[in-house]
Formats: sequence, structure tokens, C-alpha cells
Amino acid sequence: MASYTGCTCDKATPHVKKIAILGSTGSIGTSTLSICEQFPLRYTPIALAAGSNIEVAFAQAKQWRPKLISIATEPLADALKLRLRTEGITGIEVLSGIPGTIAVATHPEVEFVVSAIVGVAGLEATYAAVQAGKTIGLANKECLVAAGDLIISAARAKNVALLPIDSEHNAVHQAMRGGTPAEVKQIWLTASGGPFRNTPLEQFQHITPHQALKHPTWVMGQRITIDSATMMNKGFEVIEACRLFDLPAAKVRVTVHPQSTVHSLVEFIDGSILAQISVTDMRLPILYALAYPERPASNLTFDLAQLSQLDFSQPDLAKFPCLRLAYEAADAGPSACIALNAADEIAVAAFLAGHIPFLGIPRTIERVLELTPAANPTSIQGVLAADQAARTCAREVIARA
Amino acid sequence: MASYTGCTCDKATPHVKKIAILGSTGSIGTSTLSICEQFPLRYTPIALAAGSNIEVAFAQAKQWRPKLISIATEPLADALKLRLRTEGITGIEVLSGIPGTIAVATHPEVEFVVSAIVGVAGLEATYAAVQAGKTIGLANKECLVAAGDLIISAARAKNVALLPIDSEHNAVHQAMRGGTPAEVKQIWLTASGGPFRNTPLEQFQHITPHQALKHPTWVMGQRITIDSATMMNKGFEVIEACRLFDLPAAKVRVTVHPQSTVHSLVEFIDGSILAQISVTDMRLPILYALAYPERPASNLTFDLAQLSQLDFSQPDLAKFPCLRLAYEAADAGPSACIALNAADEIAVAAFLAGHIPFLGIPRTIERVLELTPAANPTSIQGVLAADQAARTCAREVIARA
Repeated sequence: MASYTGCTCDKATPHVKKIAILGSTGSIGTSTLSICEQFPLRYTPIALAAGSNIEVAFAQAKQWRPKLISIATEPLADALKLRLRTEGITGIEVLSGIPGTIAVATHPEVEFVVSAIVGVAGLEATYAAVQAGKTIGLANKECLVAAGDLIISAARAKNVALLPIDSEHNAVHQAMRGGTPAEVKQIWLTASGGPFRNTPLEQFQHITPHQALKHPTWVMGQRITIDSATMMNKGFEVIEACRLFDLPAAKVRVTVHPQSTVHSLVEFIDGSILAQISVTDMRLPILYALAYPERPASNLTFDLAQLSQLDFSQPDLAKFPCLRLAYEAADAGPSACIALNAADEIAVAAFLAGHIPFLGIPRTIERVLELTPAANPTSIQGVLAADQAARTCAREVIARA
Repeated sequence: MASYTGCTCDKATPHVKKIAILGSTGSIGTSTLSICEQFPLRYTPIALAAGSNIEVAFAQAKQWRPKLISIATEPLADALKLRLRTEGITGIEVLSGIPGTIAVATHPEVEFVVSAIVGVAGLEATYAAVQAGKTIGLANKECLVAAGDLIISAARAKNVALLPIDSEHNAVHQAMRGGTPAEVKQIWLTASGGPFRNTPLEQFQHITPHQALKHPTWVMGQRITIDSATMMNKGFEVIEACRLFDLPAAKVRVTVHPQSTVHSLVEFIDGSILAQISVTDMRLPILYALAYPERPASNLTFDLAQLSQLDFSQPDLAKFPCLRLAYEAADAGPSACIALNAADEIAVAAFLAGHIPFLGIPRTIERVLELTPAANPTSIQGVLAADQAARTCAREVIARA
């Protein structure tokens, strides 16, 4: 019977990849689902980890009928179950919290996990997915910034592919196909430069939260908007690139490119550089990760005929000390990278609350890095503990400032 | 004895690739030899086909001690033999003419042939090298413009790699590594735009040979300089790209990029574009072809930190009808491409001699294309005959003008 009712895949009916989405109600999650809509014969979501938005979670459950959906809290899970029952929708398991997210990430039928939950919740679930041997589409910063060594080691041990969804790292992944890893001389991450790219250094001390929350190119959350204004977001990307592509920080360069058209570049030892160019649409790197090593046809066309001018310049580390601090943390190791991320989150919140000035962000982080013990954690629990310790330290530094 | 005195290659003493250079005294040839100097354990020239410059040919023979050298004519060969004997240099076979060039291209020990003889002499010898199963580094335009179908068919039949040395096609070859051929949506060849990029259309009728011979970026021969001014050189490259990468002309686009920093781009069906960037130095594509699929470390570094601005725009086909004619010939087939190349050479010579105006070049070519029979040659001899017929036709068109 099994052979009769089982898979009848052939060239006419291609394999449908079963995916889990960690962060299904966020922007990466909804973009991933729009790709599933566009390519129903290629990708189908069977497990979803939503945030707190029960309306969106319910709509996704109704549309996609996943085998499993997890939502932020137990009360929300109860409400979602009731809602599903009321509408006569059955056969969907509903879970909650980090255990629910881990169940989504490790569901036995899942082949590919889109990791797009911001913060440490995403870290634990992604690590579990790697341990379970799933291919990962990676959009969670903490996985590589705070736990890069652990995640990468686990992925190697399990022979799991980590495919970057972040546009810069996705661009590097594409351009690296032009040679072997040993043939890479260095890589160049492009940076928009943020809203203060052309602001003179002497005005930086007067930057207000209101000014910093205006970002020219992307619509983002508040923390990532401030991280873009300080260029700390690029610093995190430097660390992520070091881990993903096994490069020392000195080989991960940053070039300021305000048009955000070139998403990144790889320089090979023979002197050739390959640059990736595309529309600024997250569906493109998501599709690349889902389909790798194939490239399906999409309608995400960049019209090169419309390309008029591309600018590149070096970042000013005097204006953007956060970028310098990220390089220092990348070299110093995992413990410093955990502290960098944790201290930045606390410092950005303090800036937004009006407790410290704009330049207080890098000052706080630098002080926390000085106070961070050098010992590196050897488990995800150790990472979480170090993260908490750095947050406490950052709050103390700010209180004393 | 053979096994004792034979090759003792291992990882410590890598295989030295034995190369032949067709056009050793030209710019591609001397650049190739400079790479052999830089990588003596990787590449050694054992057969050279020189032009008419006996001084340079002698110096190359003296330095490299090839097994075989061929020179343009029999009297030059006699002089070269005498010169070698006088200096006590023995063991170098000296030949001449097209038979000598073919002997260089097909020397039994040769593994890699750099094809850099301009014109039909290069065509015959390169075809012979393909038939003999040699890997080809291709810098001869006629091979693909006039005999693309024959050369490509022979290369496929013999499983011979044709590696483009021209910087644009080399760039496409590199960027195409980012996907499969079926995943290529279209390619974009970059063009400097030539000296008349910004000249208004109404001034084109008054362009003199003196004006046209000034070219902003490259130092080149007179014909290629004029071909750059008319953008016919880019038209030839479109045809070459169609043949090399098995693409219809509609998928080979041209973008005007005056900085000549991006050497070309490949657009994939998923919407990603990969662009190749490097210094403008022919040694880079030559080294790429010689080493493929490896990339050796070189000192041909492009400093991305110095990159400030890149411009792209669409070519104006009203100002550059030669480019339009090349697209039409690419679609029309081999016979039209042969006529395009032959008529262009005659028309450029007539322009330089003051017999026809600048705009007479495309007018002559267009008329010759109209008069060209559609039947396509099925042999190299047929290509040469069609080439001669088109030249005769072009001369008649000019005489009647």
C-alpha cells in the first residue's frame, strides 16, 4: 500500500519542497509565503511559527492549512485554536512559545527552514533545526553574530547548508560561485551609509531619535533603523559574513554605495571581482535560498537599461565608531560579538528613550566590550547567559554615565 | 628508462601546462609570455607563431627555447634560422606561413593554444587546433564572427573548451558560473561608447579619420580604433557572444559604460545580475583562460576603494548603425556575419584613405549585406571564399558610390 499511495514524483510532477517558516507573520515570513503562492508546485509551508499577530496567524493557517502552527504565547494559542474550531478548520496542531517554535523548526516532514525570528528565540529554534539536519534559509542575525561558531560547527557536523537570506550575504553567496573559497581574496559588503552619510562629524553629537528614525531606502523596525544610522547593522553583517564564509574580519570590507543596487561584491585572488545586482526585494534572496542550487524564473526584474549611476566610497570610521567596534569584536571572538549585539540593543533603546545621546551608543558598547570576560560559551544556553550578562552590564554602564 | 626520466609530477611539482601562442609578437602574445614569466611552474610556451617582427621573434626564441617557431614568410624563416645558428641556439624548428602556424597550433605536445592572430590566418590554425583537441584561449575575432558555427560545432564534437580572452566575453564566462546556461535570461556587454559617444548625430557626417583615430581608453590598431568609433567592434562582440554562449541576438544586450570598469554582466532568470569588475589589463583574462577552472593569485588588483562612480546608458542605434547591422547579421546567420566583417574591413580602409565619409562605413556594409547570398558555407574554405566574395562586393559598392 505504501508504494501505491506514496510519492509519484517524476519530471512532470516535480518534488514540492516542504518548508517551515520561523517568523511567518513578519516581513520575511510573508514574503516567503508570497513565493509559495507564486511557486505552488515547488514550495509548500507545512509548519509556521507566528509572532503575536493572531489575525495574520489565523489567515495564514486558513490559507495554507499547515500541519503545525505555533504562536507567541499559550493564551494566543488557545484563542487561535478556538478561532480555527469555530471556522470548522481541523487537522492543524497549535503550539506556543519557544517549545512550539522548536517543534516547527524540527517537524519531521520539513526539509527547509526559513529562520526569520528576530532575537534569541530564533537562535534556539534555528540551532534545533540544524541539529535535525534541515537546510536553513538564514535571516536571523543573532544566529551568526552571537552564536556563529556553534551554529556553523553544528551545520558542518550535520552537513547542513546555511543559505543567507540577507541581501548582502546572499549576494556574496552568489558571487562566490565564480571561484573556490580558497580563491577569495576578500569580500565587499555594500552599505547605504544610512541617513547621516553626508552629515559632518561635528553634528553627530546633536542627532536626535527623530532624525535617526528617518531611513532613506528601507522600511524597518526602530532598532534596525538606528543600527543603520550608526552603521552597526553593517558591523553585524561583517561578523555574519566572517562566520558564514569562514573569513577573517580583515577580508570582509565595507563600501558605501547609496543606491543599494549592487548588493555586495567578491574579489578573487586573480584580481577579478564579481558583483551581484538586483532589485531591492527580499523575495529575490528568499527564492534564491529556497531554490539553491537552481534559479527559477521570477518577475523580479532589474532593468539594467534604467541603471544610470553607481557610487562607491569608503566608510568614515570616525563618524561610525560602531562599525569599528564590530570589526574589533569579530577579531576578539564569540564572547565579544555577543556583548556587541546585547549592548547595542540596550544602548539603542536608551537612545530612543532619550537617556543617552546618539554618540552614547558606541560609547556604551565600547565600555561593555572592555568589561566583557574573554571566555567563550560552548552551548546555546551559555550564549543566552552571556547575552543576559552583557545586557545587565550595558544597563549599568548607562546608569552610571 | 622512460619512467625514470619521465614526469615526476606531484603536489610539490605541479603540472606545467604546455602552450602554443598564435600571434606571439602581438599584444596578446607578449602578455601571454609575461604570464609565463610570472608563473614558470604553471605555463611554458613550447610553440610560437610570430608575425613579421623578426627581432621580437628571435628574442622570444632565445628566451623561451620553444620546440617550434613559425614566422610570417619563408625569407623571414631563413633569416631567423641563420640568426639562431649564429648565436649557437639549436633544437628549435623554424617554419613559416599558414602551414607553419597550423603546425604550431597542432604540435602534439601542446595542451593549450592561445589564438591571437588577427584575420583569416588565425581562423585556419585555430580550427586545426580544435580538430586536434587542444583547449583554446580565444582572442581571434574572425573565429566566431565568420566561422562561429563551424568552430563551435567542431569544439563540441571534440569536447574542446573555448575560453574567451576578450575582456567582455571573459567577464560573461566568469559571471555565468553563477548559474546554468538555461538560467541565463540575457547578457549585457559593456561598451566604452567610443570617442563619439557624446557627439550629436548631425555632426557624424563630418567626422574625419583624424578625429576617429583618437580613442579614449585603449591603445589599438587603426581598424579596431575605427570599429570602436562606429561601435562595430561591439557588434562583432555581440555575434561572438551569441556563438560562444549559444544565445540568440535578442539575449545579447549592449550597455554603454564609459569607465570600462564593469567588463560585462549576466542577468539570470530569477532576477539576479552578476557583473565582473577588474583592472583593464589583458593579462587578467589571459590568465583566467590559461588557469580555468582555477584562479591563481595575481598582482592585477582592482582597488574597489578607489571606485567612485559607474555610468550606464543605452547605445544610440541612430548614431551607431553598425551596431544595428551586426544584430541583423547575427540573426541572419553565418553568411551575413562573414559579409559584415569583410565589408567592414574594406569600408574602414576606404574611410581611412579618404574615399568615403564616416557614415559611408555603415552604408557600404548595409549594401553589401543586401547583396550577400543567403547560403551558408559548410567548411573553412567556404568561409574564406565567402569572405573574399564579400570584400570584392564591398570594393564594387564603394567604387560605385
